[in-house]
Amino acid sequence: MTAAPGGTPARRRGRPPRTESAGTRDRILAAAREEFSARGYERTSVRAVAKAAGVDPALVHHYFGTKEQVFAAAVEVAFAPALDAPRGIADGPLDRIGERLTRFFLGIWENPVTRAPLLAILRSALDHETAAAVLRRLVGAQVLRRVADQLDLPDAELRAELAAAQLVGCAFLRYVIKVEPLASADLEALVARLAPVVQGHLTAP
Amino acid sequence: MTAAPGGTPARRRGRPPRTESAGTRDRILAAAREEFSARGYERTSVRAVAKAAGVDPALVHHYFGTKEQVFAAAVEVAFAPALDAPRGIADGPLDRIGERLTRFFLGIWENPVTRAPLLAILRSALDHETAAAVLRRLVGAQVLRRVADQLDLPDAELRAELAAAQLVGCAFLRYVIKVEPLASADLEALVARLAPVVQGHLTAP
Repeated sequence: MTAAPGGTPARRRGRPPRTESAGTRDRILAAAREEFSARGYERTSVRAVAKAAGVDPALVHHYFGTKEQVFAAAVEVAFAPALDAPRGIADGPLDRIGERLTRFFLGIWENPVTRAPLLAILRSALDHETAAAVLRRLVGAQVLRRVADQLDLPDAELRAELAAAQLVGCAFLRYVIKVEPLASADLEALVARLAPVVQGHLTAP
Repeated sequence: MTAAPGGTPARRRGRPPRTESAGTRDRILAAAREEFSARGYERTSVRAVAKAAGVDPALVHHYFGTKEQVFAAAVEVAFAPALDAPRGIADGPLDRIGERLTRFFLGIWENPVTRAPLLAILRSALDHETAAAVLRRLVGAQVLRRVADQLDLPDAELRAELAAAQLVGCAFLRYVIKVEPLASADLEALVARLAPVVQGHLTAP
């Protein structure tokens, strides 16, 4: 962990000067992600996050509010690449949206840097109902809803969710429990098998 | 918890008399499932399992061996309905295996009694690599392999895994994070959408 530039214990109490805010906020978020990831939602306290970030607990409350809000903010950062996705996935013909979504999703999971926070979130969601609720709101409202908005169909949301189910399940078997031959399967071979299924969920009559 | 019939602390040490074995073994397994479920793989000790079951830790080792083996035995009990499935799923025409598998899988998850141990296993698999390895062996060798054996195709295992991915992902979104409208969707409507996808993974050219 790097110290905030110019930060001293005395200055960390109360409302911080503007120049320090961004660094401290990021540091708290990084600490939150690590703590929630290592210990799960239930066993993580705002006090522990503050300690790991080297700040006063009051500062964590100041920036984020309750423990649930700290968790939501950490999850949102972890999901940042996924939240940017729907725009990119929208570019291009609708009859290939299945392939774009599949490539994008597997791309996030192939990369260990973007995979780690997703694993932490899955773990917390299984661990505690509050964490599941945070994930539900984020995935439901921000990711699946955006994909559904691109389909002009009455059951667009259910379609987006069933497509997501195929991809999430693949991630679980391939990257978490690593069942073979799926775990070692060639990425392009997987895209070739999954993209038509995802496309079918999204646009088939 | 019920006491083992006629059991006394003194008799619990060493190899138990045959009449007591089944009850004690089941009691240890039930305690193991609860402990692993509540605390995850890493934070559960053989000593804690023994204490919850009201037996000496040596007896846990005697019946099951190492902590990993205790976990594997607990997982196997939780998976017992799923392990019985492939036989039932094999009965009937191959061109409707997708529907049988889908109905069977969602049936296990719809029932809170059979759902709880599955959730505990998923949680542990996300929690610790050893638990993931146990799940990998069990799911790979005993569940997916048996489904694959019924397909007379060179890539049968990958097919079975991609079909399982669709179902596992659906379970995660519907029963764990409970995203709507999937969480409230009618079971028959879900079967109608998922069965053709599962069938396609398993038998499409």
